Amino acid sequence: MILADATTDTLGFAGRLGADVGLNSAWVMVAAVLVMFMQAGFAMLEIGFVRGKNAGSVVAKILVNFALAALGFYAVGFALAFGGDGALLGTHGFFVAHAQDIPLAFPTNRHGVTAETLWFFEFVFCAVALAIVWGTTLERIKFGVYIVYAIVFSTVIYPVVAHWIFGGGWLATNIHVQDFAGSIVVDVCGAAGALAILLQLGPRRGKYGGDGRPHAIPGHNMPLFGLGVLILWLGWFGFNPGSTLTALDGRFPTIAMITQLAGSAGVVAAMVVMYAKTKTFDIGMAGNGAIAGLVAITGPAGYIDPWAAPIIGAVAGVIVVYGVLAIDQRIDDPVGALAAHGLAGMWGAIACGLFAAPRLAHHNLPGSRGGLLTTGSLHQLGSQLVGIAAVAAFTFSVSYAVFWLVGKTYGLRVSAQDENAGLDISEHGMYGYPEQFIPGAELVGYGAVPAGLRLGTGPMSDPEVTAGN
Amino acid sequence: MILADATTDTLGFAGRLGADVGLNSAWVMVAAVLVMFMQAGFAMLEIGFVRGKNAGSVVAKILVNFALAALGFYAVGFALAFGGDGALLGTHGFFVAHAQDIPLAFPTNRHGVTAETLWFFEFVFCAVALAIVWGTTLERIKFGVYIVYAIVFSTVIYPVVAHWIFGGGWLATNIHVQDFAGSIVVDVCGAAGALAILLQLGPRRGKYGGDGRPHAIPGHNMPLFGLGVLILWLGWFGFNPGSTLTALDGRFPTIAMITQLAGSAGVVAAMVVMYAKTKTFDIGMAGNGAIAGLVAITGPAGYIDPWAAPIIGAVAGVIVVYGVLAIDQRIDDPVGALAAHGLAGMWGAIACGLFAAPRLAHHNLPGSRGGLLTTGSLHQLGSQLVGIAAVAAFTFSVSYAVFWLVGKTYGLRVSAQDENAGLDISEHGMYGYPEQFIPGAELVGYGAVPAGLRLGTGPMSDPEVTAGN
Amino acid sequence: MILADATTDTLGFAGRLGADVGLNSAWVMVAAVLVMFMQAGFAMLEIGFVRGKNAGSVVAKILVNFALAALGFYAVGFALAFGGDGALLGTHGFFVAHAQDIPLAFPTNRHGVTAETLWFFEFVFCAVALAIVWGTTLERIKFGVYIVYAIVFSTVIYPVVAHWIFGGGWLATNIHVQDFAGSIVVDVCGAAGALAILLQLGPRRGKYGGDGRPHAIPGHNMPLFGLGVLILWLGWFGFNPGSTLTALDGRFPTIAMITQLAGSAGVVAAMVVMYAKTKTFDIGMAGNGAIAGLVAITGPAGYIDPWAAPIIGAVAGVIVVYGVLAIDQRIDDPVGALAAHGLAGMWGAIACGLFAAPRLAHHNLPGSRGGLLTTGSLHQLGSQLVGIAAVAAFTFSVSYAVFWLVGKTYGLRVSAQDENAGLDISEHGMYGYPEQFIPGAELVGYGAVPAGLRLGTGPMSDPEVTAGN
Repeated sequence: MILADATTDTLGFAGRLGADVGLNSAWVMVAAVLVMFMQAGFAMLEIGFVRGKNAGSVVAKILVNFALAALGFYAVGFALAFGGDGALLGTHGFFVAHAQDIPLAFPTNRHGVTAETLWFFEFVFCAVALAIVWGTTLERIKFGVYIVYAIVFSTVIYPVVAHWIFGGGWLATNIHVQDFAGSIVVDVCGAAGALAILLQLGPRRGKYGGDGRPHAIPGHNMPLFGLGVLILWLGWFGFNPGSTLTALDGRFPTIAMITQLAGSAGVVAAMVVMYAKTKTFDIGMAGNGAIAGLVAITGPAGYIDPWAAPIIGAVAGVIVVYGVLAIDQRIDDPVGALAAHGLAGMWGAIACGLFAAPRLAHHNLPGSRGGLLTTGSLHQLGSQLVGIAAVAAFTFSVSYAVFWLVGKTYGLRVSAQDENAGLDISEHGMYGYPEQFIPGAELVGYGAVPAGLRLGTGPMSDPEVTAGN
Repeated sequence: MILADATTDTLGFAGRLGADVGLNSAWVMVAAVLVMFMQAGFAMLEIGFVRGKNAGSVVAKILVNFALAALGFYAVGFALAFGGDGALLGTHGFFVAHAQDIPLAFPTNRHGVTAETLWFFEFVFCAVALAIVWGTTLERIKFGVYIVYAIVFSTVIYPVVAHWIFGGGWLATNIHVQDFAGSIVVDVCGAAGALAILLQLGPRRGKYGGDGRPHAIPGHNMPLFGLGVLILWLGWFGFNPGSTLTALDGRFPTIAMITQLAGSAGVVAAMVVMYAKTKTFDIGMAGNGAIAGLVAITGPAGYIDPWAAPIIGAVAGVIVVYGVLAIDQRIDDPVGALAAHGLAGMWGAIACGLFAAPRLAHHNLPGSRGGLLTTGSLHQLGSQLVGIAAVAAFTFSVSYAVFWLVGKTYGLRVSAQDENAGLDISEHGMYGYPEQFIPGAELVGYGAVPAGLRLGTGPMSDPEVTAGN
Repeated sequence: MILADATTDTLGFAGRLGADVGLNSAWVMVAAVLVMFMQAGFAMLEIGFVRGKNAGSVVAKILVNFALAALGFYAVGFALAFGGDGALLGTHGFFVAHAQDIPLAFPTNRHGVTAETLWFFEFVFCAVALAIVWGTTLERIKFGVYIVYAIVFSTVIYPVVAHWIFGGGWLATNIHVQDFAGSIVVDVCGAAGALAILLQLGPRRGKYGGDGRPHAIPGHNMPLFGLGVLILWLGWFGFNPGSTLTALDGRFPTIAMITQLAGSAGVVAAMVVMYAKTKTFDIGMAGNGAIAGLVAITGPAGYIDPWAAPIIGAVAGVIVVYGVLAIDQRIDDPVGALAAHGLAGMWGAIACGLFAAPRLAHHNLPGSRGGLLTTGSLHQLGSQLVGIAAVAAFTFSVSYAVFWLVGKTYGLRVSAQDENAGLDISEHGMYGYPEQFIPGAELVGYGAVPAGLRLGTGPMSDPEVTAGN
């Protein structure tokens, strides 16, 4: 498909593209870049929700995960996911070699983008799914766990799941599971991995009292949390509209509109429910409502008409509030990822089975059907439940095994002493905010200050005292 | 126009687009996404300029406004703004239904983008205008005021104003008001709403002494302020060049260059003026100079030649400095929005009447004319003043009435006690920076720390003390 | 080339573009916008690495540099860089006038983008190079130095260097230096300027003890550092793929993939080396590894096959760790720019001479050759060394002279007293974080607080005490 539009020059690489492939590739590349930036969104959201003594660790975690996932998805993952239309796995395209053959197996690549465009777009999805896993583990996990799992996730776990639904595997071809941009592939998958580690990792020290009742452990920076939510929202305009894989399909702007409506309804619904419960306008739940609405619309975005989007988003906003509060009674998920990605992702997949419009089902995934509310048939709903169950079961079981092995060898959790001190100093050797944790760190070289501008703390006697060297 | 280029498949939706519509829609979609991200810019700028005890509230405010505006502009606002070319209001396209008819009424949509692309691009403009309103209200407004006004603004106030100028209404068709990307529609409109609430809300406690002289209330975070300014600057490359609504017009890169030159001149002029007054390089005014320059060029961007851009921006930079200082004598505008958006927006509209090039006037708004300095005629300048007056009067009066009604029922302002405590805790139930306001919040589970790395404060006796639950 | 595709209407400006030019211009405009946002990346990275008392100054510095560079590059710089194919300098296109002639001289503009698109794309590169210069100077430079050098850099230094390699000058035409997106033009150039100022500025007070041994001066905010790294990474997807200057060349998505692989390998390599040395997962080096990998791939991105990208990035990650540690023994570079941009940039240029594929060399720069490892020839490696030496020598010597003159007249360095107090208060008249440095700043208007929510510090006796006015 690409090669039909592209000329291959005598030096052996695809040179000048046809205008269609060029336009589609440029659009999908931009969409991918927006999704890439969601890494900053996850970083800021998580930093906001942890205590300051663990804030720097999030930065290192995001960078290392993003880096390892790229290398793993380049060498192995892309081939398994998109290298052929076998039921279980792709088999060619390791190291994105012979790339020109790959897009032929990609069922939605109807208008054509280059193979490397596909790689980049699909890689950033993998990296988002991986980022979702870690929200539950903050403030007590050993850093090395990230490294091992990032490799396994980007080379095996995510590629298999992506192949089943995005890459022409059995869930797409035989079960006709609708998942336009990944409510299942990305969000349910990520949340299943999150649950697998959480059950073995246990809660943060101090989270549950002697009576088993949960204590709130407030994060430290709602402004950065808010920035994170808005960056993620931005990224979703790559995630969903970009999943058309073409700028020549009249649906991609509609999908952007649908995405906005669902995220908006999620905010409103979560705020209303929380206000009814607490009489305050909860900041964190406003953000979680946005995430939940956006997660829930990710699967149905290409299959529904716009009127359904606010409904799907609003339900997600309600789900996330009750989900976070219920989960918090038993297991310690510092950012609410199990609710915002797991429950809302499942709801998004189910929503396809309720709201999918038959003509869009036919257009985007021939063989799939309209939803219960548009056709009166339970058929598609059943397919969606199979999709959720298959992806959740596979991801959870493989992840659980990986974490179990890591736990038996390297260990999963830092010592109580290190947890108390914070991961920044214990795992990374330096606080994320040295001036707040190391007395005098801002005062290196400190001396006299203009009268009237004296700092709150007194000058240090030794101007060359440093925090470490 | 769209349907002429697009094929409609047998299932009844616009399927494959012509290459022109696809390219234009992709470009305008990307531009819209940049404008969407300006919400993060406003959030960071405002957070930087408020005290830490009110920082979290800004996050909740931005999310709720953005969400409500989307729902309102989807259901009602877009139809009133762009659903037909009546002098006062559009009349069809509620819920963006029968979307294929809408772009026909949109005078600048000459090359064609899809209706949903237009919706998204115009919605994010509405959301920016709404964000401008609130900068003046920070640190003492009741949260519910945001909710009521966001609904009215996105369904009535902004759509009417947008229709008059962008949507083929009387100011465009009869008065020929030039406003390429919204110095009037967005900035003057937002500032008029801001003035309407500010006059009823009053200053922050402690802002004016017993003698009526203003006290400075410094914000708490200039780094986030700077991030906000740069995000807004980024967004302006969607705002102005995207307003061509096409990538097939040779002007859109020129408009980007013009935008950059004006913002740059705004920074330089504001810095120079402030340095002359204070002998320091004022950080906040550097940012305000950028905003003012960008606001001022928004209206003329499509009507002027590049040489005029640095002049327009520099004048805006001077205006914002004197404007902020003069306004501060009487009314308390924490972020300087009245000057940076109101005065600079008016200047931008006036600048069209001074600098517009006749050929560009003819090209972008047939019937409008060149400016005083390019043609010697006062005609266009008169049109511009009518445009400013009409939009400011309409927005101010309707907004004043809405806020008056809200004030009489729900109330506009938190109690003195709540204002002192900060909106984060009083309206939202949790500080934006819990560790800075709640002693020991970072120490949940705190115990021994490695020697030499001990925290500045002593360990808590009870490791399970929490800040609330 | 543009005019061939564009129609010129009777009013004398390029009107409707051909679809190819429209698509290419839209793509390159979006790429340029991503590069523009790197200003925020530099701001956040630098803010994270300085002490809190100097954080606000970074904001003012970035804004003023970005503004001045735009004006200088518009008036003079673009013409010198791209206004003709003379060996040393371009000679026309001042104020981007007669812009239609300019792209003809631009050797890589084969598919055509408009002149103003080129201006914007090349300007943001200039602004990035300028930003690189200042990382070494933080926490003690006088603000006015920025102003003088920004003007010289954007009008002379960068344009000359850019002309030599990007604009058809002697290094491109005679020496055939490969530098796809600027490892030399941007990174080596910026680092050479950084070294020129650093040698005259000296270290921060307290950096070196009486015995000459370096003390660590920790930055104050790793979360913002991390945000900066991720914003820069985002921007690189404009930097490198956008440097194709077309969306109709099948290489641009490949270049995005190559960029991602190199940045990823840089992170992993830097982390591994640091872990081997310190047994901790160093946060700052993870980020520096990313930057170094991305810098190193900038030059070879268009000339290599993907397999070489992880190698080039990994070597850069090793180089940056040892480079930062070695340089720190002698000269005080607060953000590690000499290593991350200078050494990694040189390595990137050298990597072309090792890894360049002959067919890509032929395609992107006729006359240049494949690398040592792909062809066995040292020829291209020699060209690369000439390119590095010429750019480094020119930039360093002119910069050194400029800074020497400034030092003799205005001075380069703030007083010891001002350095101790911090640049925010001494140069800008206000702290970046007033609440952390001015006791009671957050308490303006402070009164009673709800029981149980009392602030850590006691209420002020005078509710109207302000921090200054």
